[in-house]
Amino acid sequence: MKKYNAYLIDLDGTMYRGAERIEEAVHFVKAIQKKNIRYLFVTNNSSRRPDQIAEKLISFDIPATPELVFTSSMAAANYIADQKKDAAIYMIGEEGLQHALQEKQFTFIEENPDYVVVGIDRDLTYEKLAKGCLGIRNGATFLSTNADIAIPTERGLLPGNGALTSVFSVSTGVNPIFIGKPESIIMEQALRVLGANKEETLMVGDNYDTDIAAGMSAGIDTLLVHTGVTSKEKLTEYEAQPTYVVDSLSAWIDKI
Amino acid sequence: MKKYNAYLIDLDGTMYRGAERIEEAVHFVKAIQKKNIRYLFVTNNSSRRPDQIAEKLISFDIPATPELVFTSSMAAANYIADQKKDAAIYMIGEEGLQHALQEKQFTFIEENPDYVVVGIDRDLTYEKLAKGCLGIRNGATFLSTNADIAIPTERGLLPGNGALTSVFSVSTGVNPIFIGKPESIIMEQALRVLGANKEETLMVGDNYDTDIAAGMSAGIDTLLVHTGVTSKEKLTEYEAQPTYVVDSLSAWIDKI
Repeated sequence: MKKYNAYLIDLDGTMYRGAERIEEAVHFVKAIQKKNIRYLFVTNNSSRRPDQIAEKLISFDIPATPELVFTSSMAAANYIADQKKDAAIYMIGEEGLQHALQEKQFTFIEENPDYVVVGIDRDLTYEKLAKGCLGIRNGATFLSTNADIAIPTERGLLPGNGALTSVFSVSTGVNPIFIGKPESIIMEQALRVLGANKEETLMVGDNYDTDIAAGMSAGIDTLLVHTGVTSKEKLTEYEAQPTYVVDSLSAWIDKI
Repeated sequence: MKKYNAYLIDLDGTMYRGAERIEEAVHFVKAIQKKNIRYLFVTNNSSRRPDQIAEKLISFDIPATPELVFTSSMAAANYIADQKKDAAIYMIGEEGLQHALQEKQFTFIEENPDYVVVGIDRDLTYEKLAKGCLGIRNGATFLSTNADIAIPTERGLLPGNGALTSVFSVSTGVNPIFIGKPESIIMEQALRVLGANKEETLMVGDNYDTDIAAGMSAGIDTLLVHTGVTSKEKLTEYEAQPTYVVDSLSAWIDKI
């Protein structure tokens, strides 16, 4: 069996389930680390800073540092930096997105931005929606960190960033450039951060529609683990199958 | 030419343009009133109470009373009352929608409602979106006052209720029952309020996609007036044409 030199690893459903520890995930990451294999956590979560996410992983005893975390917000910031280093941005989002854009020293403005960037924003207001729509109608490039339609919470499924993003696309008729999984943009950015090429890399995740689809669309081999959203039964409905499938990540440790 | 016993009349673009008077509209409504012909103003506007709308019409010298105004909020309230007189409702909307639902003495609740009703809400919050999504996922019937994607304002086109509504439909996968034009629901309610049947009624409006389409879908003859959004050039793109077309409502006065 092929050995991989680099791992891209999903978080929720793969490394933990909300506040719940996944024991096999801890052993999996420790085994990767022990062999000095490169890895990067890749998440659609746009609301948190990488240090906050690393802290959560460490609390589960998973080896992590902020440099090992790559969010859809960071991928959005990299994407813009590639196009226009001094971009003026109107942002709708939380701390994670703001931090990622600040790191690139973009200008934040409310009128006539070069980019309107949308991430989950639980302080959303109509005025933010209005400013975003006006910006897009005035020609700003419209980015959205991710298309997730719902967020699992203790209260149930709350609106995700893909649902909030639809306000802008429905109102203006302009479709956004989505950055996060299943898009290949975040994967290509992640490979660059990791300094790896796609042939030597394995994408690991629990969600066919985001993690596995992202790997496939970027031409990266994929490992689906059944500890999260995509069940065995559900998986049979898809024509294109992941490169590998395991019930838990403990089944992969001797293949690292 | 056929004489009509009842008129359903659109507001913005037909009776006025925003804050701008349309002189011919004043003469048109006065001519209808003089002949003792029944009429009702029918608007997708869900945010205002009928007395507020009547006041605006009167300020333009157009004969109006609150009883002559029928909004998408009132049509939504009537629609629910037909189904469940003691409905428990979670409402996202402004004064007009709240007033219309209160008139029917529905109960307002935030959890496990029978209906989630969405109208334009410029005090929208993420929490309102969350409660609406949870209600719909728990089985509430999902109504939206209207599908208008944008609102013309002095600042430009701001997000309309159809754009806000998409958050719920995208997140939950449940499509709303739209009440306002171009749906036939508001037209059937309006005919009932007016006590008229469709054969004797003419729908008058400036917008093909809402006013004329609503008339057609309800089986009511239509009069398109080119004082608003649908230009002569635009009208040629539609296969199904209005029953009548005039440049301004003064051209219709001798046909009343």
